[in-house]
Amino acid sequence: MAVPPIDFAAIEAARLAGVGVVKRTPITESAALSERFGGNIVFKAENLQRTGSFKIRGAMNKLASLGDAVKSGVVAGSAGNHAQAIAFAARHFGVPCEIFVPAGASLSKIEAVRSYGATLSEGGDTLSDAVALAQSRADATGMNFCHPFDDPMVVAGQATLGLELAEDISDLSLVLVPLGGGGLTGGVALVLKQINPKIRIVGVQVRACAPYAGTPPADGPIITLADGIAVKTPGAFTRPIIEQFVDEIVVVEEDLVADAMVFLMDRGKLYVEGGGAVGVSALMSGQIKPATTGTTCVVLSGGNVDLGILPSLIRRHETQAGRRLLMYVRISDRPGGLARLLTLFAEAAANLVEVEHMREGVDLHVRETGVQIVLEVRGREHADTVMSMVRAAGYNADEINAG
Amino acid sequence: MAVPPIDFAAIEAARLAGVGVVKRTPITESAALSERFGGNIVFKAENLQRTGSFKIRGAMNKLASLGDAVKSGVVAGSAGNHAQAIAFAARHFGVPCEIFVPAGASLSKIEAVRSYGATLSEGGDTLSDAVALAQSRADATGMNFCHPFDDPMVVAGQATLGLELAEDISDLSLVLVPLGGGGLTGGVALVLKQINPKIRIVGVQVRACAPYAGTPPADGPIITLADGIAVKTPGAFTRPIIEQFVDEIVVVEEDLVADAMVFLMDRGKLYVEGGGAVGVSALMSGQIKPATTGTTCVVLSGGNVDLGILPSLIRRHETQAGRRLLMYVRISDRPGGLARLLTLFAEAAANLVEVEHMREGVDLHVRETGVQIVLEVRGREHADTVMSMVRAAGYNADEINAG
Repeated sequence: MAVPPIDFAAIEAARLAGVGVVKRTPITESAALSERFGGNIVFKAENLQRTGSFKIRGAMNKLASLGDAVKSGVVAGSAGNHAQAIAFAARHFGVPCEIFVPAGASLSKIEAVRSYGATLSEGGDTLSDAVALAQSRADATGMNFCHPFDDPMVVAGQATLGLELAEDISDLSLVLVPLGGGGLTGGVALVLKQINPKIRIVGVQVRACAPYAGTPPADGPIITLADGIAVKTPGAFTRPIIEQFVDEIVVVEEDLVADAMVFLMDRGKLYVEGGGAVGVSALMSGQIKPATTGTTCVVLSGGNVDLGILPSLIRRHETQAGRRLLMYVRISDRPGGLARLLTLFAEAAANLVEVEHMREGVDLHVRETGVQIVLEVRGREHADTVMSMVRAAGYNADEINAG
Repeated sequence: MAVPPIDFAAIEAARLAGVGVVKRTPITESAALSERFGGNIVFKAENLQRTGSFKIRGAMNKLASLGDAVKSGVVAGSAGNHAQAIAFAARHFGVPCEIFVPAGASLSKIEAVRSYGATLSEGGDTLSDAVALAQSRADATGMNFCHPFDDPMVVAGQATLGLELAEDISDLSLVLVPLGGGGLTGGVALVLKQINPKIRIVGVQVRACAPYAGTPPADGPIITLADGIAVKTPGAFTRPIIEQFVDEIVVVEEDLVADAMVFLMDRGKLYVEGGGAVGVSALMSGQIKPATTGTTCVVLSGGNVDLGILPSLIRRHETQAGRRLLMYVRISDRPGGLARLLTLFAEAAANLVEVEHMREGVDLHVRETGVQIVLEVRGREHADTVMSMVRAAGYNADEINAG
């Protein structure tokens, strides 16, 4: 094995740099995942980390490593977790902080950065633009530029998470880590492989942006739920670490990112962002099987996601679980016509989600109107019962298959 | 102090009864709550407990305490967490389990109970009905009846959570516990008060059902987000414990239960059910101030809530945060009329949530149509900017104040 680019002394120093700020996040068993996929599966619940992601580990170490120079302040380009971490660390050190934010960054992340007292500036269209602007600003002002991942001090900070895994899980066998720029995956992998080369390390990328898997994305902004790991270009420092220490890189599909987020709430009781949930996606897709001996750890790297995204994820989940019944019904266009139909649904214990009149472009008799109905039902069997009841009551009703 | 009804040996026995099943759930710091309300606030993340709530602690102890008699099987009446816990424990002991479920119980909870192999029966309209039916069934069959809270073995099991708090938080000063039947609050209180009488214990009930606070609910089913603590009648065994060991009982409003659930996801990154979140509600309302010295612990007692409930909670939150703009606009009823308006919104970086034509009962010129628009915006300032842009483009637009 080639000499690793970061030694244990540097990682222990990073741990000290985080004292009082970085939490030792819990390892929680996932009975739900273990029952579904076999093996013994646990989560590293790093979404519960301060600032909502692992990035504070690297940020604290980076600022501490600057020594007196930190007083000139720090500047970074980021759409999210790195920005929050640098802003929080700068406040902790009591130094100025400027963040360049690309267009379309999440509202809640921007608010958090502002709440930590950082100055925000428009940072172009993409993450690369924002990073480049931050670098220019640092060059022009003498402030310290903080790269989101391609920096030994940042990687040493993220590596502290690997140390916690080794210490807290005695029979650790397989680790799944979300892979973006490579700071977290690289740090975790180089620690664990030195402690025990038999521990298997899997990096997980998302289809929309998987340069480490050899499929770089197209130009322009990337649309994905896993925006936290949508990094287009591997780092000059991190790439060789990933190549040396990571056993396998898998790429998960966008739909499975959504499924993993919903699963983590519904069964894991944890609120995890898309980029933080991809390890679960890789188990769901069957691309990675849990270890048959020893513990499999899925690193949930962050929880910073706008609430506004959830309703559509949940609607999709409910539809797939057969909990939505759509139908088109012709009813009498007289007083009480709709009321009578809705009463029937109530009797069938189906919950009304939406009702809309449809009169245009449909074939109707005089004194008749069409309504489109969305109901919440218990499942396919219940949906069939409801349709039967509606037809038995004399309605002309069609189920709409939206799938 | 009167002799407590449960001694430490019984609680240690309960701890042993849970070995291999009950998790020692993590204590997590809540920087977000501490910054907002002061003090040092931590969560006991019992939503991460096996079966999704603290109930497994009491259930394991109850079944263990039955000795050989457990082989006759167990029967319980419950709409949720107790049912899941008893079903899981019965599977662990390899004995038959029957659960009586009241009407309107949550789909995901019922599914979980079924997945553990229990037999489900209709259990009347209310929780009391279901408990009574379970009792009758036990009397008729010789199966073991398992009460959800009014049983010394169940209270001893829940008391193990109190022991963990004492062991894991060295400067524990104040504890907020969701209060339903009194099994959890009673168990936690009697442990902590004996270890250190200065630790202040607050039980939190929800407005819809607060018998311990002297406001019993009306007859019939109770509608509340905090269904897990909607217990109408305190227990004969638990009531004296609550009276002896609990310092204060507060009652929180329904809206604050919703706010607490959203806050816990957004800032705490934890998925917590309404009944599990009421401790946070009590801080939000200002009814309880965090301790000025020592740590305040908020017990998050469970996480079993249907995902289907979230979209409406989140919509409410986004509206209150000023992230929704509703307007009524008259547009040209020619090809491209709506497209031109929507392009304007895109330029204003406002995200379209809903658009609906409104032609009935509104005053329109010929070749004009009305549309009702819902937009996602960044806040009040952004909303004002969007309205100005729309008017500057020559539209007749009115903001709709839905509040």
